[in-house]
Amino acid sequence: MSTDAPYHDFVPPHRVLMGPGPSMVHPRVLQALSQPLLGHLDPVFLGLMNEIQASLRATFQTQNEFTIALSGTGSAGMEAVIANLIEPGDRAIVGVNGVFGTRVATMIERSGGIPLPIESPWGTPIPVEALHDELVRSAPVKAVVLVHAETSTGARQPLQDVGALCRSHDALFIVDAVTSLGGMPVDVDGWGIDACYSGTQKCLSCPPGLAPLTVSPRGMSAIRKRRVPCHSWYLDLSLIAEYWNDHSRAYHHTAPISMLYGLREALRLVHEEGLAARAARHQWNSEALLAGLQTLGLAPLPQAGHRLPMLNCVTLPPQIDENTVRQQLLQDYGIEIGGGLGPLRGRVWRIGLMGESSQQAHVFTLLNALEEIFTSHDWLSQPGLAVQAAVATYTHSEGSARRSP
Amino acid sequence: MSTDAPYHDFVPPHRVLMGPGPSMVHPRVLQALSQPLLGHLDPVFLGLMNEIQASLRATFQTQNEFTIALSGTGSAGMEAVIANLIEPGDRAIVGVNGVFGTRVATMIERSGGIPLPIESPWGTPIPVEALHDELVRSAPVKAVVLVHAETSTGARQPLQDVGALCRSHDALFIVDAVTSLGGMPVDVDGWGIDACYSGTQKCLSCPPGLAPLTVSPRGMSAIRKRRVPCHSWYLDLSLIAEYWNDHSRAYHHTAPISMLYGLREALRLVHEEGLAARAARHQWNSEALLAGLQTLGLAPLPQAGHRLPMLNCVTLPPQIDENTVRQQLLQDYGIEIGGGLGPLRGRVWRIGLMGESSQQAHVFTLLNALEEIFTSHDWLSQPGLAVQAAVATYTHSEGSARRSP
Repeated sequence: MSTDAPYHDFVPPHRVLMGPGPSMVHPRVLQALSQPLLGHLDPVFLGLMNEIQASLRATFQTQNEFTIALSGTGSAGMEAVIANLIEPGDRAIVGVNGVFGTRVATMIERSGGIPLPIESPWGTPIPVEALHDELVRSAPVKAVVLVHAETSTGARQPLQDVGALCRSHDALFIVDAVTSLGGMPVDVDGWGIDACYSGTQKCLSCPPGLAPLTVSPRGMSAIRKRRVPCHSWYLDLSLIAEYWNDHSRAYHHTAPISMLYGLREALRLVHEEGLAARAARHQWNSEALLAGLQTLGLAPLPQAGHRLPMLNCVTLPPQIDENTVRQQLLQDYGIEIGGGLGPLRGRVWRIGLMGESSQQAHVFTLLNALEEIFTSHDWLSQPGLAVQAAVATYTHSEGSARRSP
Repeated sequence: MSTDAPYHDFVPPHRVLMGPGPSMVHPRVLQALSQPLLGHLDPVFLGLMNEIQASLRATFQTQNEFTIALSGTGSAGMEAVIANLIEPGDRAIVGVNGVFGTRVATMIERSGGIPLPIESPWGTPIPVEALHDELVRSAPVKAVVLVHAETSTGARQPLQDVGALCRSHDALFIVDAVTSLGGMPVDVDGWGIDACYSGTQKCLSCPPGLAPLTVSPRGMSAIRKRRVPCHSWYLDLSLIAEYWNDHSRAYHHTAPISMLYGLREALRLVHEEGLAARAARHQWNSEALLAGLQTLGLAPLPQAGHRLPMLNCVTLPPQIDENTVRQQLLQDYGIEIGGGLGPLRGRVWRIGLMGESSQQAHVFTLLNALEEIFTSHDWLSQPGLAVQAAVATYTHSEGSARRSP
């Protein structure tokens, strides 16, 4: 065999993962991944799949029977939802204010559909009125697709009123919750969402490789009534449903056993903490981080009220050589943060506080590292203020928390 | 959250995996899965991707630059190859003699292509002459697709002469090596294969979830010259190539980090053993198993010379209640074997000896368990002969091995 093959043990260096995902993974999840395998039709494994379905329903806040983990990453979840719900010729409104809305529009086209983009500046949510106007102008519309948490901009999309609007125009409501699920409320049933997909490597703090996915009975009915089969066999949800359904269990493809072990444990950690406490933790750590960053001249890109707590997108002062700082953070401190994508390349940092990565210790460590680096480059004359600002925010937040009922 | 969520630790029962996959996973691979995560653009992780590419090239016996692990199971590998190489209106010859050839034909249709099936009885290879005749009759043909190791029948498809035949008719040669790779020779360059995909959970003995995949320069040229984009964005190989290529590393989707850790270690084990020794091990264990099974009245479905060493498909004597026996094997002995699919349901067993599962100890354990179960049902009067037959085969094989240079 080739002499290029690796002979040494692979021991990854220590990393504090504060980028746009993957996030840190709890040791219990890592341990679950290393359990011996079961067959994908073993009754004990089928029981584990049922447990995952129940836990995912709780996390998505839904009663949808079809609630599964798809055998691919978050982008596979996006493609599965679009390819199954959009048929050739279907018109679909899509909010485009970042990389992932753009990706949705591409997938609608590749499925033979007609994307109707509603654009907003990157970092700004899509106005609900614009959705209403487009639903009226372009009727009939098959679906409205919105990205709940735009990972490329840190913007939060309001969703509460969109489900009712879609129903009143007989359109399906599709939501990308790749980055939001497990870090802020995703109320699938309460918000009238018909299809919602996520990824495991963000606020669920499981390694990447699975896409949690839920489809309402209304959505499943649309899939079962398709005029032509979905172009993808691998992502055909009508076939996949027959494997996850406890009554049929028809073989479709071999499930990623080990990854599902990991997801079960990650969902158990979500359950132990509770969704509300988890959302509050994400919010506090984000506020403390932003308070610290602002003393360094780094301001959030989205307006107050539209910021994601798990993905803090901040603009950079002009004197900062952003790529050098990111390299120093990685090499000297073992901290990974994300740079900008597309038009925001070189202009922003994307700092993730997702799942296990959303920790007070990480906030302090990053702020201290930035103060040291900025000082070494003479961009900062008085270090210490950033960490102090974060501490002050925590003191205030914890006081508030103690006062809450 | 829901009270349905699981509270207990998940501890899988001990299983000897002798079905059609997943196979047993070496403890070193399980340990690799539990290493802490790196980011998917971390330089150390990109180095690991390069190592995987080099190891996969050695395993596929190819120099193809585009040799990667796709982020999905073996069926995703099948769909990626078909969806990228078959354009709407393309004719593709496909050998159909089992479940997986049938699946290929379905995927060709879903990609807008026209499948030209060449059928053989299940368990019998596709004759090369029939491929030649169809290439002449249906010219121009875009591709010929053959399943090297039909997991539903245990039949081995000869491939040596097909590459030259395809080239002489300007057709691409596509091979499904899901079950064969790592257990018998897959000589991509030597056999003139243009696209070959596999799965990790068979003879590579890694958990399911990745599809090793290689495409020749001729195949990549066909992909880059497509008239319309591939219907799948997630499986678009021209985009995926830009992430795996060491010069661009353009973000496409978040790679399944932990699974790639596991695959690296699994390929390292393949490398340490060597492909030839590994193939010989699979062959010996298969011969010993079949010798034992024949004393129980279980005969191989495929003819001699066309049998897969890693997937032993045997027909059942009429008195055997096959489902009861499989349940007893699983519940009382912790041994998983596979039943028949489609028209072979209830008529055959599929006994896998793949990768780490291909062990003398497993052969003896299964034969002994079958003798005990058959005796308890009064289907066997003289137990012990099956294990004896396997022992005799090993003694003979080891003698032969000692005599070899």
